[in-house]
Amino acid sequence: MSGEGDTTLKSICYKPGGSLQLLDQRKLPLETTYLEIRDTADGWSAIQEMVVRGAPAIAIAAALSLAVEVSNFSGFDGSSAEAVAFLEKKLDYLVSSRPTAVNLADASLKLKQVIANALASSAAEPNSIFKAYIEAAENMLEDDVASNKAIGTFGSSLLRQQAKNPDKLSVLTHCNTGSLATAGYGTALGVIRALHIQGVLERAYCTETRPFNQGSRLTAFELVHEKIPATLIADSAAAALMKDGRVDGVVVGADRVASNGDTANKIGTYSLALCAKHHGLPFYVAAPLTSVDLSLSSGKEIVIEERTAKELLNTHGGLGERIAAPGISAWNPAFDVTPAELIAGIITEKGVITKNANDAFDISSFAKKVTGN
Amino acid sequence: MSGEGDTTLKSICYKPGGSLQLLDQRKLPLETTYLEIRDTADGWSAIQEMVVRGAPAIAIAAALSLAVEVSNFSGFDGSSAEAVAFLEKKLDYLVSSRPTAVNLADASLKLKQVIANALASSAAEPNSIFKAYIEAAENMLEDDVASNKAIGTFGSSLLRQQAKNPDKLSVLTHCNTGSLATAGYGTALGVIRALHIQGVLERAYCTETRPFNQGSRLTAFELVHEKIPATLIADSAAAALMKDGRVDGVVVGADRVASNGDTANKIGTYSLALCAKHHGLPFYVAAPLTSVDLSLSSGKEIVIEERTAKELLNTHGGLGERIAAPGISAWNPAFDVTPAELIAGIITEKGVITKNANDAFDISSFAKKVTGN
Repeated sequence: MSGEGDTTLKSICYKPGGSLQLLDQRKLPLETTYLEIRDTADGWSAIQEMVVRGAPAIAIAAALSLAVEVSNFSGFDGSSAEAVAFLEKKLDYLVSSRPTAVNLADASLKLKQVIANALASSAAEPNSIFKAYIEAAENMLEDDVASNKAIGTFGSSLLRQQAKNPDKLSVLTHCNTGSLATAGYGTALGVIRALHIQGVLERAYCTETRPFNQGSRLTAFELVHEKIPATLIADSAAAALMKDGRVDGVVVGADRVASNGDTANKIGTYSLALCAKHHGLPFYVAAPLTSVDLSLSSGKEIVIEERTAKELLNTHGGLGERIAAPGISAWNPAFDVTPAELIAGIITEKGVITKNANDAFDISSFAKKVTGN
Repeated sequence: MSGEGDTTLKSICYKPGGSLQLLDQRKLPLETTYLEIRDTADGWSAIQEMVVRGAPAIAIAAALSLAVEVSNFSGFDGSSAEAVAFLEKKLDYLVSSRPTAVNLADASLKLKQVIANALASSAAEPNSIFKAYIEAAENMLEDDVASNKAIGTFGSSLLRQQAKNPDKLSVLTHCNTGSLATAGYGTALGVIRALHIQGVLERAYCTETRPFNQGSRLTAFELVHEKIPATLIADSAAAALMKDGRVDGVVVGADRVASNGDTANKIGTYSLALCAKHHGLPFYVAAPLTSVDLSLSSGKEIVIEERTAKELLNTHGGLGERIAAPGISAWNPAFDVTPAELIAGIITEKGVITKNANDAFDISSFAKKVTGN
């Protein structure tokens, strides 16, 4: 398992045999508290109440909460088919904690397939089905960390190739894409982590990431925890930072990537990409292939969630005191879409997707090649 | 005088004969309280403690605090030369309230010249010198409002000419450049006000203006007060706003304009200009000619003030609770410089400065032409 002896900040602490703890991200950065998750009811509440956030982290926390529940069974009094029905019902329940989280629904489908396969095998009995489920859930955790480490390796190599000085570079990132949003290590922040481990990172810059401050609260927390030289800036100071020559490139995560490479990510990403283009700086997206939705031909098909005006009107992401003038209305899109033309490369766990001779990303061909399908 | 019967929000309420009240901007937007200013000691404190802010507003509030003190004299027991010395000493004292405020020092120099001229006149006596001073201070207030209204007229005409539909346009602005930062009406916000009065403003968009939130606190307050249709956005949402086709242009104020048109303004202005350029939207600077510093050949000569990291680390511009991760460092420049190449026009009280055949601003020639010097 990942974890033992590793000082990396973890949002998901899992021990095989039936122990799961989740870092309570609602209390960060001022308090580091872990909540014990004993079963799917605990898991459902933790997801619903935002103890855990970040698409990959949510899916894995949900899957493991069921693994823990099953691991702690003293005995299951039913048939193999009843064991399957039990797991399926619990997975549906977990998906209901955040119905719009695509990764969570995807994970549930994959886990149901695992259970179905286990039932179809000749030696099917309740225990073998539960065992297959637990292994699959544990694999999700390990695979996500391994996938992020691969992203870190590919990404750090790419950034070094494209930097003025491959042995000393500074990078700007946005929002939180680190250990707190994933099973561990992180995507865009994983690239920064890898550069730091290689001893070539001069400084990481992170934006506040208004209005929910994922940057100043969570990314800054991870960077300080990992002792990575880091500086926080206002989102709007990014252009001045680039003009000053303080960064060699920008790397961000992705909520969803369309098949042409257009990328939906936290509001403000598009602005950073425009500023990077003007300053001749490379702009990279780091995301696992599961973030690519090949059914979307372009970013125009991505629906942008609008969130409550309160996030802009009050402190603490809408939960604190009022600061804005009474009576003002607000427009608060959660994401924006950065067109592929502004993206220098998409860093995945299977390698970097670069543009072809037509200056376009062919993600579909890349995915076929690396998965062999 | 400006004011009576006018419902425009005023930061400076002055009545000839010796009455001055300043809107306490520290309490905005949640409380609207005016402080009575009886003399230069009150004026000094109000400026020093940020009751009043904005370069033109500070200079005028200072000048009027001395006018009020002098107006309320029951009698001055001294010579004309002693009256001049008294006024000069008080002006120096007022300048010491915000030593880096250029407008305040400029105003003091101009007022000293007025006093010197009054002393040199044949009928010089203490009362005539005080009268000359009071008139000059009152003129500053009236001139600033008149100057802003002229900016509003020139600017609204320019924006309408360049909009797709001159009878229905939406404009984005940044920071606070309204009645609260000036003697009244405002510069960039004066342009928006003029469009609204003409019935052609569909909607004003204002940014939060991190990290001090002048947009969400002050500009939003003014827009609501004036019943101008208005929407607040995160600074980082501006690019998405433009991509959505929601605005026809951007208009901002200026802290300092170099002779080539490079403009220093609140951090985030440069980013907005880059985003506007990418979306083919005009980007305007609205500022009185006094904001132009012809001694600066370009923006490279403008020194950018860096402010305390606390503004990013705590709520309420650094005065509230900690929100950022403990241990993180921050880079917090107060301003950035937008290069002239990104600026479509500089809107002054004497007309719009546009680019010449060489695609450059010749502000020096414009200033000579309009001032006749």
